[in-house]
Amino acid sequence: MSLKTVSENKCFGGQQGVYAHASSETGTEMRFSLFLPGDAAGPVPLLTWLSGLTCTEENFTVKAGAQRYAAEQGVAVLAPDTSPRGTDLPGEHDAYDFGSGAGFYVDATEAPWFDHYCMYGYVTRELPALVGEHFPVDLARQGLFGHSMGGHGALTIALKNPETYRSVSAFAPIVSPMNCPWGEKALTGYLGADRAPWRRYDACALIEDGARLEHILVDQGEADDFLAEQLKPELLEAVCDGAGVPLTLNRRPGYDHSYFFIASFIGEHIAYHAERLKG
Amino acid sequence: MSLKTVSENKCFGGQQGVYAHASSETGTEMRFSLFLPGDAAGPVPLLTWLSGLTCTEENFTVKAGAQRYAAEQGVAVLAPDTSPRGTDLPGEHDAYDFGSGAGFYVDATEAPWFDHYCMYGYVTRELPALVGEHFPVDLARQGLFGHSMGGHGALTIALKNPETYRSVSAFAPIVSPMNCPWGEKALTGYLGADRAPWRRYDACALIEDGARLEHILVDQGEADDFLAEQLKPELLEAVCDGAGVPLTLNRRPGYDHSYFFIASFIGEHIAYHAERLKG
Repeated sequence: MSLKTVSENKCFGGQQGVYAHASSETGTEMRFSLFLPGDAAGPVPLLTWLSGLTCTEENFTVKAGAQRYAAEQGVAVLAPDTSPRGTDLPGEHDAYDFGSGAGFYVDATEAPWFDHYCMYGYVTRELPALVGEHFPVDLARQGLFGHSMGGHGALTIALKNPETYRSVSAFAPIVSPMNCPWGEKALTGYLGADRAPWRRYDACALIEDGARLEHILVDQGEADDFLAEQLKPELLEAVCDGAGVPLTLNRRPGYDHSYFFIASFIGEHIAYHAERLKG
Repeated sequence: MSLKTVSENKCFGGQQGVYAHASSETGTEMRFSLFLPGDAAGPVPLLTWLSGLTCTEENFTVKAGAQRYAAEQGVAVLAPDTSPRGTDLPGEHDAYDFGSGAGFYVDATEAPWFDHYCMYGYVTRELPALVGEHFPVDLARQGLFGHSMGGHGALTIALKNPETYRSVSAFAPIVSPMNCPWGEKALTGYLGADRAPWRRYDACALIEDGARLEHILVDQGEADDFLAEQLKPELLEAVCDGAGVPLTLNRRPGYDHSYFFIASFIGEHIAYHAERLKG
């Protein structure tokens, strides 16, 4: 598959790139951002960041300050967009929490979404293969992290693919979309009103249904405006407790939902992943 | 003077704020960004960042990753906007390199600009006083740095006010606006066609005319698209050599004009300032 270079900038001795390609999963052109550390002797671990509602590949790339830590740890950091772009389905651009900018990392089964809204397949199948084809990354050493809707994406994708992803962490994740307004709206729209198939895209339900991970790291700001209504980390805590899944949940006093919170702890998360990916 | 809080976010244990106020210098509402480190025992040094063409107070705040280093070093970092906003003077918004987003840190003397384009007075007089009134900063320990047009601002303002600013540094500064297209256009527009008054806003001319600093730190990317035509660090090197002004000019292979370059070295610059401001 061919790749179009949108931009490449030297950063912390490595290279911050943005690329575009025709996606077979979404049927659209997709963009992603990739940071490659400098001076790597061979293929480096690949850590994929999944962004939250309204984001493109750019928000994380310019706001999180991840490049310093990725360079220090010798890992590549990949950040895809959060939905297909350039389509104009009915209502697709009407709300910030559904449609464009809000793919929720599912493969939609409802019309008209299923033709394009296949972000689960894009993130787990097409994108890593494409990146592995074009850049010196080691697909046998992958980790996954994300924020809010992207934290939901990271948790659910890792729970369903523990053999692919050696490490997973999240900032302020939606831990149970079946139990919050953002999630109920999105899953109804993409998967239909029957709640049974939703369980495959809900971190808490996946653990209840038997999925397991060696460890999960979560950071959550206590001054996050979405904490009580949408994020509900206590649900993940309870289900991990019940299933014996080791969870480190850092509640951070005073921090909100913004990239200023993410930037403050992204170094700790990248070090956490690097420790698990470098072995 | 009263201050309106636009946003406040906890970041690296400190507080990243954005504020608005009515400015007497520009006759408009002005916005600025201020990071205050946490756990300060008393007033902290104030390091002011001046941004480049097209920027507002936001670019540096979200892209430079300065908060980590400012928190570590215990210094406040202030970032004003680059021009008045909300006015509609003839041609003000027609070009990226003149008018809005391009105040060039001068006090304009030409009509219609002189009523509002007083960014020199705003940055040197009004803004530090306002910040000192509302926040725990020590105005006796101020430093100045900036990028491109803002590097020009930092150099010229420090050269004219060495008793106020104890330290100065710049990323990819316009070192001699009298000798590049960006500068000639701006100085003609704001100050008129007579080149004599331009010398007060040109770092090289100020040094030629006797201004002195204890030391200047400059970082310049060698892959910067504006290097040869607009920035010309060799002019500053020559004039500093001739006048005996100590200059550290780091030429960075492969780095361009972007915030990815700034982010890569902002930690070194903040450490440089902190060393000089903490005494």
